[in-house]
Amino acid sequence: MATESRGTEGGARPKVTITAIAQEAGVSVPTVSRVVNGRSDVSPETRARVEDLLRLHGYRRRQSAPGDRAALMDLVFNDLDSPWAVEIIRGVEDVAHQDGVGTVVSAIHGRAGSARQWLKNLRARASDGVILVTSVLEPVVHEELRRLNVPIVVVDPAGSPALDAPTVGATNWAGGMAATEHLLSLGHRRIGLIAGPPRLLCSRARLDGHRAALEAAGVPFDQALVAQGDFYHESGFHGCDQLMSGPTPPTAIFASSDQMALGAIEALRRRGLRVPEDVSIVGFDDLPEVRWSAPPLTTVRQPLADMGKLAARTVLRQARGEEIESPRVELATQLVVRASTAPPAGS
Amino acid sequence: MATESRGTEGGARPKVTITAIAQEAGVSVPTVSRVVNGRSDVSPETRARVEDLLRLHGYRRRQSAPGDRAALMDLVFNDLDSPWAVEIIRGVEDVAHQDGVGTVVSAIHGRAGSARQWLKNLRARASDGVILVTSVLEPVVHEELRRLNVPIVVVDPAGSPALDAPTVGATNWAGGMAATEHLLSLGHRRIGLIAGPPRLLCSRARLDGHRAALEAAGVPFDQALVAQGDFYHESGFHGCDQLMSGPTPPTAIFASSDQMALGAIEALRRRGLRVPEDVSIVGFDDLPEVRWSAPPLTTVRQPLADMGKLAARTVLRQARGEEIESPRVELATQLVVRASTAPPAGS
Repeated sequence: MATESRGTEGGARPKVTITAIAQEAGVSVPTVSRVVNGRSDVSPETRARVEDLLRLHGYRRRQSAPGDRAALMDLVFNDLDSPWAVEIIRGVEDVAHQDGVGTVVSAIHGRAGSARQWLKNLRARASDGVILVTSVLEPVVHEELRRLNVPIVVVDPAGSPALDAPTVGATNWAGGMAATEHLLSLGHRRIGLIAGPPRLLCSRARLDGHRAALEAAGVPFDQALVAQGDFYHESGFHGCDQLMSGPTPPTAIFASSDQMALGAIEALRRRGLRVPEDVSIVGFDDLPEVRWSAPPLTTVRQPLADMGKLAARTVLRQARGEEIESPRVELATQLVVRASTAPPAGS
Repeated sequence: MATESRGTEGGARPKVTITAIAQEAGVSVPTVSRVVNGRSDVSPETRARVEDLLRLHGYRRRQSAPGDRAALMDLVFNDLDSPWAVEIIRGVEDVAHQDGVGTVVSAIHGRAGSARQWLKNLRARASDGVILVTSVLEPVVHEELRRLNVPIVVVDPAGSPALDAPTVGATNWAGGMAATEHLLSLGHRRIGLIAGPPRLLCSRARLDGHRAALEAAGVPFDQALVAQGDFYHESGFHGCDQLMSGPTPPTAIFASSDQMALGAIEALRRRGLRVPEDVSIVGFDDLPEVRWSAPPLTTVRQPLADMGKLAARTVLRQARGEEIESPRVELATQLVVRASTAPPAGS
């Protein structure tokens, strides 16, 4: 364990010793060491006071050096329930593995107790950095994370600007626009949208991109052609049913996640409608499996593995005390045309 | 770091001290400590000699205790390229998280250099246990793993009995039998098989189960109805094409992985054939996505998350020095009937 203080390597911050922290906090040097090393035998009040001082003085918890216990990076999901997750894990692991850093994967299930258990584990294993994936964390967890003073990067930020950390996202707005432009270019005018959860910034950006494409083409936006989904299959199934039950159903649907697109295709199949002959479908994500859906899905590729890689590189750079050029990066999305889109019937 | 030796908690093994190991190896006590703590500044020969002695005397590298750096478990895949992986990660993480143990996920890509980098990282982070998932490791990696003396569990063993470790699998033979029995019960007699890689035990067990079901029903096994796949989509696509191109094509196909089943469905779609009206398809795995394939897939459920959970519990018990009742456990597979199977056309 590193027991020596370091500022950022840029030299901006003064070095501070454990002894100085101990004096300022009015506790013994071993107590500060116990806090630094993530031990549990320190009272919560003392820990908070010492951690605040460590953070104030820019004390870096540990720096990996040859012979030290190897470095670790924490990668945290709300849930490990989607093929989406494995793409991000793959990207993070690829970068971390090469750097000799272990990738610790956790799911906190959006439950406070689980987040607290994770924080306790994080503290104990003295992780060198944290990557949060679209995690909606409670403010109290943010506060404790800040106290731990580890580098944090958020992948695909979900509208929680309370956490002052660099973010890696995708160009959701441009992706939404590209999906709808593609359908317009095929001749569709009644285009349904199955939207993602409105609390997530990425959902809102995709919706706004869709609207922008319609407006640029002079096609009025119709609220009756929007169904509300949650990114999972089932909501795509029901959203599609809702859209197709209206008096003038759409000839094409942009489902703002691949899983919802697959749900929509199944809803159409049960209605005896063919994709793309009767209704065209565009998804969003480009999960590996949609190359093999029936029919193969036209979708907007989100570079999930690359987002994981960039997040890992950013955490490692922060852990080394290097500067981050941009606190907010969006990687480009790309339309991938396969077999689920065609001109509208009768055109 | 624990620097005291422990035998198994059953008390079967005598305690051994680092001092005794140092004497026997003819090296200093700090050298043995360096080996125990995974430091790199020890010559390979000395490390090998010391590790052999540590293993011989049943020395346990470390035992987690309150205040120690938290425990870690390594979960190793050949590749992180399948939704399959996320199911196992979910199971392992669920058990580990509750125990305050971090799950370090790695992919070694079947490359020797990558496996060696992982071993180096594993040694440095002093992981408390290792779960290998269908990993075909080189003998030299086995040897080094044995030397490290950490608990190991293999999930879904791939025919590498060289590694003397407990295994967690699924009842692949019974699953293969159930898939084909289902098709026979619907009235199919010409049943194609898309087999998995023959070097994997699970592939052979599924094939043998299929044969056993045919034989029990008095249907002769026909080698012309077997196509060779590799568990991935593309091989299912081509395997199906091969089977359907024969003079008397099958009326049903058992694809021994879900991904191959999805590839087969796409091959049939391109031929203008409907599932299940023209050809029935059964898969194997029950990945979350196949509930939403078009049509939803009849498949053999493999309890991947439960296999991950059991593997994690087994590693943790070994790490605590507890006895393992059975070194080889197979969890039950289960046929899940959805919409991709029906009686043969004209029946």
